[in-house]
Amino acid sequence: MTKKEAAAVIIAAKQRLGLTWAQLSEAIGRAPAWTVAALLGQHPVPEAEAKTVAGLLDLGEEIELALRAQPTRGALETAVPTDPTIYRFYEVLQVYGPAIKELIHEEFGDGIMSAINFRLDVARAEDPAGDRVVVTLDGKFLPYQW
Amino acid sequence: MTKKEAAAVIIAAKQRLGLTWAQLSEAIGRAPAWTVAALLGQHPVPEAEAKTVAGLLDLGEEIELALRAQPTRGALETAVPTDPTIYRFYEVLQVYGPAIKELIHEEFGDGIMSAINFRLDVARAEDPAGDRVVVTLDGKFLPYQW
Amino acid sequence: MTKKEAAAVIIAAKQRLGLTWAQLSEAIGRAPAWTVAALLGQHPVPEAEAKTVAGLLDLGEEIELALRAQPTRGALETAVPTDPTIYRFYEVLQVYGPAIKELIHEEFGDGIMSAINFRLDVARAEDPAGDRVVVTLDGKFLPYQW
Amino acid sequence: MTKKEAAAVIIAAKQRLGLTWAQLSEAIGRAPAWTVAALLGQHPVPEAEAKTVAGLLDLGEEIELALRAQPTRGALETAVPTDPTIYRFYEVLQVYGPAIKELIHEEFGDGIMSAINFRLDVARAEDPAGDRVVVTLDGKFLPYQW
Amino acid sequence: MTKKEAAAVIIAAKQRLGLTWAQLSEAIGRAPAWTVAALLGQHPVPEAEAKTVAGLLDLGEEIELALRAQPTRGALETAVPTDPTIYRFYEVLQVYGPAIKELIHEEFGDGIMSAINFRLDVARAEDPAGDRVVVTLDGKFLPYQW
Amino acid sequence: MTKKEAAAVIIAAKQRLGLTWAQLSEAIGRAPAWTVAALLGQHPVPEAEAKTVAGLLDLGEEIELALRAQPTRGALETAVPTDPTIYRFYEVLQVYGPAIKELIHEEFGDGIMSAINFRLDVARAEDPAGDRVVVTLDGKFLPYQW
Amino acid sequence: MTKKEAAAVIIAAKQRLGLTWAQLSEAIGRAPAWTVAALLGQHPVPEAEAKTVAGLLDLGEEIELALRAQPTRGALETAVPTDPTIYRFYEVLQVYGPAIKELIHEEFGDGIMSAINFRLDVARAEDPAGDRVVVTLDGKFLPYQW
Amino acid sequence: MTKKEAAAVIIAAKQRLGLTWAQLSEAIGRAPAWTVAALLGQHPVPEAEAKTVAGLLDLGEEIELALRAQPTRGALETAVPTDPTIYRFYEVLQVYGPAIKELIHEEFGDGIMSAINFRLDVARAEDPAGDRVVVTLDGKFLPYQW
Amino acid sequence: MTKKEAAAVIIAAKQRLGLTWAQLSEAIGRAPAWTVAALLGQHPVPEAEAKTVAGLLDLGEEIELALRAQPTRGALETAVPTDPTIYRFYEVLQVYGPAIKELIHEEFGDGIMSAINFRLDVARAEDPAGDRVVVTLDGKFLPYQW
Amino acid sequence: MTKKEAAAVIIAAKQRLGLTWAQLSEAIGRAPAWTVAALLGQHPVPEAEAKTVAGLLDLGEEIELALRAQPTRGALETAVPTDPTIYRFYEVLQVYGPAIKELIHEEFGDGIMSAINFRLDVARAEDPAGDRVVVTLDGKFLPYQW
Repeated sequence: MTKKEAAAVIIAAKQRLGLTWAQLSEAIGRAPAWTVAALLGQHPVPEAEAKTVAGLLDLGEEIELALRAQPTRGALETAVPTDPTIYRFYEVLQVYGPAIKELIHEEFGDGIMSAINFRLDVARAEDPAGDRVVVTLDGKFLPYQW
Repeated sequence: MTKKEAAAVIIAAKQRLGLTWAQLSEAIGRAPAWTVAALLGQHPVPEAEAKTVAGLLDLGEEIELALRAQPTRGALETAVPTDPTIYRFYEVLQVYGPAIKELIHEEFGDGIMSAINFRLDVARAEDPAGDRVVVTLDGKFLPYQW
Repeated sequence: MTKKEAAAVIIAAKQRLGLTWAQLSEAIGRAPAWTVAALLGQHPVPEAEAKTVAGLLDLGEEIELALRAQPTRGALETAVPTDPTIYRFYEVLQVYGPAIKELIHEEFGDGIMSAINFRLDVARAEDPAGDRVVVTLDGKFLPYQW
Repeated sequence: MTKKEAAAVIIAAKQRLGLTWAQLSEAIGRAPAWTVAALLGQHPVPEAEAKTVAGLLDLGEEIELALRAQPTRGALETAVPTDPTIYRFYEVLQVYGPAIKELIHEEFGDGIMSAINFRLDVARAEDPAGDRVVVTLDGKFLPYQW
Repeated sequence: MTKKEAAAVIIAAKQRLGLTWAQLSEAIGRAPAWTVAALLGQHPVPEAEAKTVAGLLDLGEEIELALRAQPTRGALETAVPTDPTIYRFYEVLQVYGPAIKELIHEEFGDGIMSAINFRLDVARAEDPAGDRVVVTLDGKFLPYQW
Repeated sequence: MTKKEAAAVIIAAKQRLGLTWAQLSEAIGRAPAWTVAALLGQHPVPEAEAKTVAGLLDLGEEIELALRAQPTRGALETAVPTDPTIYRFYEVLQVYGPAIKELIHEEFGDGIMSAINFRLDVARAEDPAGDRVVVTLDGKFLPYQW
Repeated sequence: MTKKEAAAVIIAAKQRLGLTWAQLSEAIGRAPAWTVAALLGQHPVPEAEAKTVAGLLDLGEEIELALRAQPTRGALETAVPTDPTIYRFYEVLQVYGPAIKELIHEEFGDGIMSAINFRLDVARAEDPAGDRVVVTLDGKFLPYQW
Repeated sequence: MTKKEAAAVIIAAKQRLGLTWAQLSEAIGRAPAWTVAALLGQHPVPEAEAKTVAGLLDLGEEIELALRAQPTRGALETAVPTDPTIYRFYEVLQVYGPAIKELIHEEFGDGIMSAINFRLDVARAEDPAGDRVVVTLDGKFLPYQW
Repeated sequence: MTKKEAAAVIIAAKQRLGLTWAQLSEAIGRAPAWTVAALLGQHPVPEAEAKTVAGLLDLGEEIELALRAQPTRGALETAVPTDPTIYRFYEVLQVYGPAIKELIHEEFGDGIMSAINFRLDVARAEDPAGDRVVVTLDGKFLPYQW
Repeated sequence: MTKKEAAAVIIAAKQRLGLTWAQLSEAIGRAPAWTVAALLGQHPVPEAEAKTVAGLLDLGEEIELALRAQPTRGALETAVPTDPTIYRFYEVLQVYGPAIKELIHEEFGDGIMSAINFRLDVARAEDPAGDRVVVTLDGKFLPYQW
């Protein structure tokens, strides 16, 4: 069973049992974004957490093994995503990518925001004009170093 | 003069005069990320701000007109960016895109984070293990509505 | 069962039973274009409507669950569609896309037509020189707002 | 001078003189969407209209000749447009393309909406919840006919 | 059963029974090129003709239903075809496409040859220097009309 | 001067002098489709014909040399053409390509229609229901031969 | 059974039985390169040869039918091949393609080497500095002829 | 001056002076295919040969320097070549690529034909049925060796 | 069973049995990088080694045969890899590719590092500032030689 | 002046003056690979080093400013490089990419080799069977860390 097949089984079980990502992430004591990415196949899940998830979702050992396996990462089916919810983040890159780059260089010098030593959070900010999605990307700055 | 040519002239003038994006953004009273994106050609700049920028950078009316023009947005030269500082954000999409989508749907229902009613911020978070780049994407939630 | 597999089953059942999209859309009290897009897998279908559709088409719970699931949207198999009926709309974009953009900006200022707060209608306009297909795209204007 | 170069000159002159597409379209007695598409290089402009436009914009015969030339149509720089205002229409295709196709076939039988015997209109619909962009695509139905 | 799967079954049955396209097209009273395209899944086949074909090829109702279904057209597996017999027609487009366009415009004005109100024929022209393939594309001229 | 630059100069001169492709093709005694393709840069033009064309269009020796040069053929700017007049021929390939292939094999056996020993003609067929564009592709059959 | 599936079965049987391409090509009396290409699905195999091959490889009638079927040619899985042994020939095209073209034109005039009336041979040339692979491509010259 | 610009100048000078590739290759004592590839910018040309070529073509030192520079190789403008004379060799790869690979492995074992320790020749083979282009690719076999 | 399917089976068995690549490479007496690449399907494995591997992993003859088969090499699913661990090596090519080329030419003259007569090693270099991955690519220099 | 234009000027000056990369890298006291990459436009060059380089190459302040500017990295003109010397490294990724990934994970756990905290070296290893190119990639291991 591939990690992609496991992810489909997990989403179906989650829908059937009426569980939420929040419940799953709480059960394994991990941040929600990490948990969802991992259960969708983008991170290896440690044995204990894999067992907990398989137990909660009433799934067998095959799922557990798939979750624990090392992924070959990359979740998009096309280079430019077609789903509107995901596309908007690609659009942000198209409009603001070079601006983000300039601001990182001005503040930190030549280097990058790590996507490995990295965490992200999706939150709701209440707003009378309509609540807002606030996505925080938080990665260690890595200076170009020879 | 296209907005892209104007951006090249602006970057050269900024380097020559030793100005920072922070100074330019403060001079026009706009957020840094908006300012940089706009001067790189991704937003139309209102007349007053365009004049201020052209003045500060010692540039003529041609630049001012280019800044004020309505852009056809899209700043990346290839669908998948090659610059490492920008690429890491594409990588975040490849690894976490579907997870962000799941969390938005779980919290808000079916819909998207707007990239139009939207602001973003690039900040430094001090950290003894190495300072961090914190990029906050903040867009209005738009529910699918017929 | 994926939403794509469900769509194939639905189209086959609809052909077998001689039902129309109009009948299905009336049965669930939704606009025809929304109904077809949803049954083809591009919108999540609420429980009641999913049950109604599954009942009318004599299909089981697996279809119902698939219809209710959150889609990853994107219905085209290639970036440029090959089917002539769909291609003509892509051609409209190639010929008129920038003109539509100019007219939106002239009338509304910098911003977009939402494709989320959006409805569309396909109608027949009788015409002695040959009836016409009239597709109305109707989306909320969203101004660029920081 | 290519039609693309002419379009850039026309947009610059229009900005300099403070003219609107509405004024230009009225001056030549053509629908706004046709006028903009044509001045951006997607339609050949008849001699009289080309002269009128060149006159209004204070431009010379070179522009007039470029406007009158037969275009090789296709206005997008990439197969998938990057500009958000244009992209939303591509997104409509990704989400609703097959649904529009189904509805055309159900109403008219096998065939297409012509993009040649075709007109389009961009209008504002006032709405207390926020005004709406209404784009009407209106093309002759062409049945598959051997 | 998809139309593509049906096409594979039809080709196998035709090979097994030693039938020709000419016999099939004569049996249903349709032009050969229409017949082959339709049986390969590019046109919906009316009920009577679908029954005739299924009967001749000794195939069941599933094939008949697949033949009658509305296709999503597009028969090439890659944007640029790799099969030499098909590629030569793509090469003709690469070498003569703009010339054909010029000649259509010179003779008819601005417009297109319809590919919908269209028929095509493949014939043999005897020639002492080697017989020739003569493919006639015959489509209604459609002028650009607003 | 490249053959592509020469083609642009020729089209401009032809528009300025009000000449037609028919006149040019008659002047050099070549078929219209060959003539247009050649003047657009897809065939080398023999010295005499190149001189005649340059003379008629009032152009200098640089054009003559460019016309005589051996081309690297390929006239489309993108693999899938965007211009509707040219696209319809690509669409014909998408819908009828494999059918044409089947008919060639049934009539001639395994092989191709040559695109080298080849001529094509664009003609008008009068028709009360609307005149028709008839494009005849006529190439020598080449059997696969080891 | 598709020709591609047949090729996989043939390769497995050949490995299992320890047969060589040389033996298979000798058994059917065809050139090795033709034989391998045909058994990999790129040429239709005449009935007698198909029977011989199926017999030698201890395979059934399904393979024989697949071998005899007309192929849709094109053996590469990506436009640019990734396998190093095949890639080197693509590299030869990248480095020497235009040079080969120039030499063909200088020797023969405007035209091509046929890939249809064509044979190829792969041989070993002994060389004290290391034996050499000599691939001879031998195709009829076809002059551009209207 | 880039090597590509130099190639254009060389081709123009060669056409103007009526020189042949054969004469140029003889003058520098190199194989024709090497000579043409090198003058088109795919090989660095040693000083003496560069001087000879520049002298024969009546060109200056800038050409000589460009010829001597180390190239970044790759002569095709698109991954799949559009020029028919070059395309046929790509087609050979599509039809015979895997067959050539099989024959190399059967004769030599696992490895490749070098495209670096490599020579090629384009020759005419007289044939009563039409003369033939014979292209010989001759590269050292390199076994996979760890 | 394809080599790709065999690789999936091997990875699953290795995970189940808790074996390491180091153990497998030691068991067959081959370098670790060669071993892993070969077991993932990129090299043919000699009979003895294939037997050893199948035995250690408790797998049958089908795996052994798949391992011994000649591969069509190429392990990436997209031209630009999406997995971050692999992508960094692609990024190295984007940033340092031309520099590596210059240094090879300066040291060795015109030619390449062979990827066939080649070995590679992945090692850990201890470093107080964080251990380092050291990948050594070691290939025979091959001079361009006609 | 862009960094790419500066690189072309630098390469020309280096060729004209007969300087080597080794001399330039020694003059600025930086590793050869860093130096070449930086002068080709992939790293910003500090003021002192930029002055030294400009001085040695007898170039003006414009080059100095271009060298000091922050690059948008990415040196390949196509996603898959065409130059054989560079391509071999892409081939290494195609053949060994997943193997390198497996070995990094086995030795270090889940994470990557940094391409930012990174150095590389190109060296000659003498070998009686032919000298070897040894490229050492040396980057800090970065574990996935939330």
